[in-house]
Amino acid sequence: MRKLKITALLVAASLAVSSYAQSREHPNLIMTKTGVDQLRSNLGQVPLFDATVELVKAQVDAEIASGIHTPIPKDFSGGYTHQRHKLNFQVAQKAGNLYQITQDEKYATYIKDMLFQYEAMYKDLPIHPQERSYARGKLFWQCLNDSNWLLYMSQAYDAIYNTLTVKEREKLENNLFRPFADYISIENPQFYNRVHNHSTWGNAAVGMIALVMDDAELLQRALHGIEDDGLELGLKDNDGGFIKVAGQKSGFLANLEEPFSPDGYFTEGPYYQRYAMYPYLIFGLAMHNVKPEMKVFEHKDNVLLKAVDALLNLSDADGEFFPLNDGQKGMSYYSPELVTAVDIAYHYGKQDPKLLGIVERQNLVLLNESGLTSAIGVRDGKAKPFVKKSINFSDGADGKQGGVGILRYGNEDLTLVFKYAAQGLSHGHYDKLSYSLYSKGNEVLQDYGLSRFVNIQQKGGGNYLKENKTWAKQTIAHNTLTQNQTSHFKGSYETGSKFASDLHFYDDSNQSVQVVSATENNAYPGTEMHRTLAMIKHKNFEKPFVLDLMKVKSETKNQYDFPFYFMGQMIKKNFESTSPKKLKPLGKKNGYQHLYVESKGKPLNDTTQFSWLGDGTFYTLTTATDSADEIMLTRIGAKDPDFNLRREAAIMIRRNDTKDTVFASVIEPHGAYSFVSELSQNSNSNIEELKVIHNNDAYTAVSIKDLKGGSSVFILANKNASTSKSHQLKIDGKTYKWTGAYYFLEG
Amino acid sequence: MRKLKITALLVAASLAVSSYAQSREHPNLIMTKTGVDQLRSNLGQVPLFDATVELVKAQVDAEIASGIHTPIPKDFSGGYTHQRHKLNFQVAQKAGNLYQITQDEKYATYIKDMLFQYEAMYKDLPIHPQERSYARGKLFWQCLNDSNWLLYMSQAYDAIYNTLTVKEREKLENNLFRPFADYISIENPQFYNRVHNHSTWGNAAVGMIALVMDDAELLQRALHGIEDDGLELGLKDNDGGFIKVAGQKSGFLANLEEPFSPDGYFTEGPYYQRYAMYPYLIFGLAMHNVKPEMKVFEHKDNVLLKAVDALLNLSDADGEFFPLNDGQKGMSYYSPELVTAVDIAYHYGKQDPKLLGIVERQNLVLLNESGLTSAIGVRDGKAKPFVKKSINFSDGADGKQGGVGILRYGNEDLTLVFKYAAQGLSHGHYDKLSYSLYSKGNEVLQDYGLSRFVNIQQKGGGNYLKENKTWAKQTIAHNTLTQNQTSHFKGSYETGSKFASDLHFYDDSNQSVQVVSATENNAYPGTEMHRTLAMIKHKNFEKPFVLDLMKVKSETKNQYDFPFYFMGQMIKKNFESTSPKKLKPLGKKNGYQHLYVESKGKPLNDTTQFSWLGDGTFYTLTTATDSADEIMLTRIGAKDPDFNLRREAAIMIRRNDTKDTVFASVIEPHGAYSFVSELSQNSNSNIEELKVIHNNDAYTAVSIKDLKGGSSVFILANKNASTSKSHQLKIDGKTYKWTGAYYFLEG
Repeated sequence: MRKLKITALLVAASLAVSSYAQSREHPNLIMTKTGVDQLRSNLGQVPLFDATVELVKAQVDAEIASGIHTPIPKDFSGGYTHQRHKLNFQVAQKAGNLYQITQDEKYATYIKDMLFQYEAMYKDLPIHPQERSYARGKLFWQCLNDSNWLLYMSQAYDAIYNTLTVKEREKLENNLFRPFADYISIENPQFYNRVHNHSTWGNAAVGMIALVMDDAELLQRALHGIEDDGLELGLKDNDGGFIKVAGQKSGFLANLEEPFSPDGYFTEGPYYQRYAMYPYLIFGLAMHNVKPEMKVFEHKDNVLLKAVDALLNLSDADGEFFPLNDGQKGMSYYSPELVTAVDIAYHYGKQDPKLLGIVERQNLVLLNESGLTSAIGVRDGKAKPFVKKSINFSDGADGKQGGVGILRYGNEDLTLVFKYAAQGLSHGHYDKLSYSLYSKGNEVLQDYGLSRFVNIQQKGGGNYLKENKTWAKQTIAHNTLTQNQTSHFKGSYETGSKFASDLHFYDDSNQSVQVVSATENNAYPGTEMHRTLAMIKHKNFEKPFVLDLMKVKSETKNQYDFPFYFMGQMIKKNFESTSPKKLKPLGKKNGYQHLYVESKGKPLNDTTQFSWLGDGTFYTLTTATDSADEIMLTRIGAKDPDFNLRREAAIMIRRNDTKDTVFASVIEPHGAYSFVSELSQNSNSNIEELKVIHNNDAYTAVSIKDLKGGSSVFILANKNASTSKSHQLKIDGKTYKWTGAYYFLEG
Repeated sequence: MRKLKITALLVAASLAVSSYAQSREHPNLIMTKTGVDQLRSNLGQVPLFDATVELVKAQVDAEIASGIHTPIPKDFSGGYTHQRHKLNFQVAQKAGNLYQITQDEKYATYIKDMLFQYEAMYKDLPIHPQERSYARGKLFWQCLNDSNWLLYMSQAYDAIYNTLTVKEREKLENNLFRPFADYISIENPQFYNRVHNHSTWGNAAVGMIALVMDDAELLQRALHGIEDDGLELGLKDNDGGFIKVAGQKSGFLANLEEPFSPDGYFTEGPYYQRYAMYPYLIFGLAMHNVKPEMKVFEHKDNVLLKAVDALLNLSDADGEFFPLNDGQKGMSYYSPELVTAVDIAYHYGKQDPKLLGIVERQNLVLLNESGLTSAIGVRDGKAKPFVKKSINFSDGADGKQGGVGILRYGNEDLTLVFKYAAQGLSHGHYDKLSYSLYSKGNEVLQDYGLSRFVNIQQKGGGNYLKENKTWAKQTIAHNTLTQNQTSHFKGSYETGSKFASDLHFYDDSNQSVQVVSATENNAYPGTEMHRTLAMIKHKNFEKPFVLDLMKVKSETKNQYDFPFYFMGQMIKKNFESTSPKKLKPLGKKNGYQHLYVESKGKPLNDTTQFSWLGDGTFYTLTTATDSADEIMLTRIGAKDPDFNLRREAAIMIRRNDTKDTVFASVIEPHGAYSFVSELSQNSNSNIEELKVIHNNDAYTAVSIKDLKGGSSVFILANKNASTSKSHQLKIDGKTYKWTGAYYFLEG
């Protein structure tokens, strides 16, 4: 059945070939003829642009000197043949830029020679020998990387198009580009015809070569996908992600529609958004240049340009992206994809001077018109700092699949990232209502991120490690509630994909009391979770703190585990615990098998405290405990014979045999320690007591007594978050009246 | 007996009071009248000096605004009363500088008021309530901190001396300064009359106040100690250090003589050298100003100024001191003590422009003539980078107690710190022939340093933790050989203090093959250890590597443990090992009780390899193994219920039942990984085989086969290190001839 369809498409494709014609000027993708004229006339006058040209020249010239290498494909990511072919397309794209800018023939010759080497090779190239992928490529182990190749090489081809004879072009197109595009599309619909970052790359790659070749059929395929792909419903990829979902469209426009929320949040999370932004923006730009009438940049209320802003906001003070879902830590807005994204967003957006603040930090620009404009902006002193504020992003194509709330205080002195989003496709984690906390660029409470060493071949070929599934995706790996030692949705991707958490409210209108609150009723059927996070700057406290309320209501009695993955060295605790003589794993599955229990104990009083020193600041977790609670200090690393996991620690509250409860906690940064002055300042918590003073369906309230004599109260309206609704509540004989979703009495 | 002596001294001291006279001009310690005139006339013209004045003004003004607080002493380091009194003397000293520079009376008044508050308090002040110290202070828990107070306060007093009436001075001197000086000296000879950094502080403090008060008897006591202190031989302090050693002199001059080697290396190590430099240089400077005829700076061939240079050389590329012996990591040449040291060394030394390179980085200067000269030098563009090269320091007053050899390649791209020194007084570790390795400012193989959280009260009052003795000092905590699970000298300080290792040779004449080699025959009686470290830049290798040969010869069969405390995440290993289901400590004592065994196995071939990723660079340990060797991956953290230790890892080779052997290893940095570009370059070792091809009393030789087809040979002459001696050796039918201590064939 599927075979037949493909054959039909192939016929259609070869018919399209005959419509081939040289009807456009070149370059026309990310560079244009008039754009190139501008670049040339500005050479020597725009320091950042000139510096980038020199840097790229040095790289490309070194590669030209080393010769052209197109080895027979063999390795996984990180291996020689993989790295070599990757370098080839990156260098060829840059050589194309240089050819247009400098008009130096050597760059054109280099590209031409490389393309013909590929042309000679591709004809007879079998499918890549590594068999792990659900969609194996030819040059690389997966179609994804082949698509990278085509997207970059299209730009190189475009740059030297006019230097080639018609015959040469026909040879390249018939033997290399068209079969290449067909292979990653109609021969691999399971890769090409999805809503997924993989498909975005595939669609954009096919679209790019379609624009160079002026091939309407390929462009149609890029924009709208393969109409009848013959795929079965319910098919899954390597990561367990769905390939075919009923009623779902495909192609670039569908990929633009689906994964982005109206706010520009990308459902897979910032790490993958960063990766996907390149094909989105590059093909978006090419469409803007070649088919402006299609208004790709303006699609869905400018979602592509909004997404750049969203992505920048999804980073810490060092520009590193929050590792939500599968995210490798350390990836930042200094990556080449973001250089591309920021320059394009600046030039084609509203020329926001804050974007130039990022350009200045990146200290590199794209070698096209947008890069030039950005570099001119910097030269002319237009840059302003990209100040990040609190912000709430909706998730889902319609913006109704939960979201991510980011609370910030000061100049990113404290940043909280609260995830109440949708599953996030195949890269999602089972971490409903979890959060991470940053102080400037330092993690205070971490999100573990992925378990993978991207491109490091020795670590599972640079691919996802099995611990990504056994540990990183599991609920217990996150700062949220695990019930009965099972992950949310029992770790089922199918189930998780059906639901998203619900925002109760988000309110950053008062910088001193910023609140985000959301509920999750599907992760554990019969159990309702409601988490509220407030970032509070209290007059009696040196620094802002986070109040963390997790209200749980269940039809049954359960065991609740509630960890905090703190980053630093333990300084002090006020509970009794003992370290076992031998370290044993905490459990057998769902991530528990990877945790050692280094210490185990009981609260000594109702206000349990635990302090640590992380990156020059002291932090204290204060949490209201029951005498029956268990407190554990755990460390990652059990059942990890290959040392794939980082040996990091957590403190975990375990509450047994409980239906309804509230985990009420404060994370309080305080003081400082310098290893140079050796001065230890304010190393103790300022909290004397934290207490849940009221909890029913309608309201949850806590009191915080501090050591300066203050007594504060925070009350949450659990059911009605309307800002205009009036409330009245009597607690311990005292009546509180307020309007809105919450009440805070700074005592 | 002791009581009697003290009484006699007290009589002498009170006699000295009558010789009190105002015979000198003030200030005369670290500031002088002519110096102050210069400072004033240059105000507004020397940016770095002006900026420092402004910074200090802001600090002092804030303190003046907060009032003067002299609480009744109560706390350990890190506690309020400790911190407060510490801040007082620091601020008073600065206020003194400001008074002289700005002539603003408010600074003089502040100091005067504070001094009289102390005068009123001190008379009736009992000994500090905390009982832990072998020499309890009055304001602080130990005389050491009281000495800090007096040394700083003397400067403050000197600065406002001329603003006080004779009566006021008499009151302060009779009720505060003289009893204070007596208390830390004649009433605590066990603190004052030693060769130790504690005594240096005591001596300098007494000397400083002697110079202000022009008191010859106190000055005599400062310079030469207490003649008959009544102390018993063999007394020890809290750290287990000797207080009284037969025949040892005392006082400042003895402290200047004894702990410094002729090269300026301080036997306790750089962390304590940094701490001690302040009293050495401040009192040295005061003596230079008041008693230039005594030539303190010139003493022992300018050892004080040499010591500043030595200390700067004992730092990594970030300026952080190597944590030899008890050293807290993170302490660096950005500390206030080093600002003082570098400015004084520049001004009173040879005005070395490289020192200005450090001044520029410090971006702060001392508020006196040397600070002004340094700031003027920076302003006038005289600064040059402080380029650190390979260097060998002798240890011991006579330079014959072993030493520390530092090999560096490039611009601190690779730095090796080899310790073959003396015990290092009470802060010494049992770590003969151990080494640590750095790449720029990053640790590749670490020295654990001390186990203490200096000034963090929650951690044992900020004092040394018991784990300093049970872990940090033990041999197994270091990158060296442990025999039969016991530490060097059986961990006996008395025994260790009798011996030092012996340098075989040090040769950095060839940047591509730098070698340091030393022997240790006393750590384990009957066993000879001979370690040779070569930093080699080989044509077939991308980066320099370290060849590490530890030759062991013993009269008996032993178990040898040989760890490498690598910093980073394991990437690959070529031996078979399994992780136990439960983690158990490796042993019961001598540090072994703190190690978990995370994985245990056997070599699969004679060349065992282990790679890790640390700070963006790959590293591989290649080591020649026997099939009977055990290989363990260990982690610190067992028997540590208070989480005082850092959970860091090691790979350890265990060789059982062996008399003579060679541990031959290569530590090879290679490639790079970026979390932004995600490019993994050269992630595999270039070594195919490492083999010991010859080993007898006369020669030890290894061969290194690399993956580029090279085969290299390194031969060490074990007995004769003469550079002129000719050698000839036949190995596997091939004859090698060379002259000098070693031979390297780059094949």
